[in-house]
Amino acid sequence: MTFQVHVRVMPRTGLLDPQGQAVEHALASLGFDGAGSVRIGRAIELAIEADSPADAERRVREMCDRLLANPVTEDYTLDVGTATREAA
Amino acid sequence: MTFQVHVRVMPRTGLLDPQGQAVEHALASLGFDGAGSVRIGRAIELAIEADSPADAERRVREMCDRLLANPVTEDYTLDVGTATREAA
Repeated sequence: MTFQVHVRVMPRTGLLDPQGQAVEHALASLGFDGAGSVRIGRAIELAIEADSPADAERRVREMCDRLLANPVTEDYTLDVGTATREAA
Repeated sequence: MTFQVHVRVMPRTGLLDPQGQAVEHALASLGFDGAGSVRIGRAIELAIEADSPADAERRVREMCDRLLANPVTEDYTLDVGTATREAA
């Protein structure tokens, strides 16, 4: 089965996020009041062949640990969708 | 009230995503089979003062339209969380 997986990779809490700070300042400059704690990370979507949602999650976690996220500075969260189609 | 909002900004479907393609090739090089349709976008988290979830969503959509997303090449989705604390 093919699962659609959404990954969110964010700078770890407590670490400086210069990109988020720049956006926060830009929002204020544009007149948007009341926005704060802006943090910018990466959103990754991918389709993965797996036997079950748990198998899909396990495989994508391994991808995150090895390639998609920096284990020193970033945290990630996964959202495994329902199977979209049978494997060919 | 303060709402925590998650925004996902992705390259529009059908547009080329070189970063996603690079990651897809890198995953294959690392031996991860069965991953495809990799697309990379931005994950943005922010806290916003608003009167209601609908108000928070309206304000963040305006931020997306004016700053956070490129209306020509990107689509965004919002996820407004529950209110986390009262305004000071």
